[in-house]
Amino acid sequence: MTYCVGIRVDKGMVIIADTRTNAGIDNISIYKKLHVVEDEPGRLVVIASAGSLSVTQSALSLLAEGMPSGEEGAPPRRLADCATMFRVAQLTGEAVSCARKAISVTLEGTRINAGVSLLLGGRIGDEPLKLYLIYGEGNFIECQPDSPYLQIGELKYGKPILDRALDWDTSLAEAVKVGLISFDSTMRSNLSVGLPFDLIVVPSDPAAPTVKRRLEVDDDYFADLSRRWGQLMNEARMAIPAPGFMTPG
Amino acid sequence: MTYCVGIRVDKGMVIIADTRTNAGIDNISIYKKLHVVEDEPGRLVVIASAGSLSVTQSALSLLAEGMPSGEEGAPPRRLADCATMFRVAQLTGEAVSCARKAISVTLEGTRINAGVSLLLGGRIGDEPLKLYLIYGEGNFIECQPDSPYLQIGELKYGKPILDRALDWDTSLAEAVKVGLISFDSTMRSNLSVGLPFDLIVVPSDPAAPTVKRRLEVDDDYFADLSRRWGQLMNEARMAIPAPGFMTPG
Repeated sequence: MTYCVGIRVDKGMVIIADTRTNAGIDNISIYKKLHVVEDEPGRLVVIASAGSLSVTQSALSLLAEGMPSGEEGAPPRRLADCATMFRVAQLTGEAVSCARKAISVTLEGTRINAGVSLLLGGRIGDEPLKLYLIYGEGNFIECQPDSPYLQIGELKYGKPILDRALDWDTSLAEAVKVGLISFDSTMRSNLSVGLPFDLIVVPSDPAAPTVKRRLEVDDDYFADLSRRWGQLMNEARMAIPAPGFMTPG
Repeated sequence: MTYCVGIRVDKGMVIIADTRTNAGIDNISIYKKLHVVEDEPGRLVVIASAGSLSVTQSALSLLAEGMPSGEEGAPPRRLADCATMFRVAQLTGEAVSCARKAISVTLEGTRINAGVSLLLGGRIGDEPLKLYLIYGEGNFIECQPDSPYLQIGELKYGKPILDRALDWDTSLAEAVKVGLISFDSTMRSNLSVGLPFDLIVVPSDPAAPTVKRRLEVDDDYFADLSRRWGQLMNEARMAIPAPGFMTPG
């Protein structure tokens, strides 16, 4: 399993991904799931993945090599030639669908799941930052201000805090904090999500620096956040009166 | 969908169930899912259900009529004849498995799910209170002090607060409060879980009264708990410092 969250607020975009993969509970590894696939002046494309690792890696390889154009003699279609993030999302969706179909054939009759989903974020030229969720079938949705986040993987444990805390006006620092609280809730309830986390923060202002960071297993900030949040949850719970229909017991 | 939680602490047992069923998002009804199937001196048996309503109703009817004994001339096997909660759990598991198998045959080739799971709680005679989770296959597990709760249905959204707040020494009033906070988180994120809720509280002390209650859509205590919890979550989040690697933004 995996947990990744992408947050798109007025001030910019945050993507956080864990790094734990498992092929059964007795086979756990660390794999990077947050991939910066393009990063040069005027072009930033980031992909985070959940689900089948083989499908994800195939899709990323197809994108790196270029997707066949389908016309004889025509050059392969590359991310670097996409003029907008919408085109990037289309090509990425095509690569995922192509990889999933090819691998599904080989998995027929097994119980191995070739399901996959991606978060795709970035900016091309002067267009605004874009954040998409790409399904294994290749179709995709774009994050919108009314629900300023998208999740993939083990998403339910960490969703309530996102619903409560995020809106379009949330600051980037707050968005990072809320995202990490969401990871804390998820980790407590599902062992297959764990540190280290990779995160990227891209401000809407193209002149402001992008933050790329790995929070390691012993990250002081995350340990402090986790401890404080647990304590504050307890205090909050104790501050709520017991139901009147219960005698003290 | 459905959400039910059963909590078994030193001081007693709490079971809370919502009442919303849906056959598609455009077909939502209120059905009681918390059934007091035996309630007389020395015998209390409560069943809460999640999953296929037809399988649940068939299983309850089989239990009410008595399960066939399998031997010619022998009387049907009834809950009322079970001498312990373990026997009640066995008979209930058998009824569920029987109902599920019969209905699964008729659903073959459709995409309708006959899956079901039950919480079973109660006490026979002088034995301690027991709480079980019964799977659709008829096997079951018993709640133990290390993890003093069991959930069925839409369980992930509301699990983190249970993990954080409950232990064997939690009071019954606190257990009811924590259970309702867990419902609040679930309702925010999944429309198919909703008020009214049915709840039953059974103290370990057989002389103490059992509380049975329905929290209606406009229940004042739940509305207050929900409002306070949302506000306390916000305050807790704001009390946590922003990550040092983020410049104010």
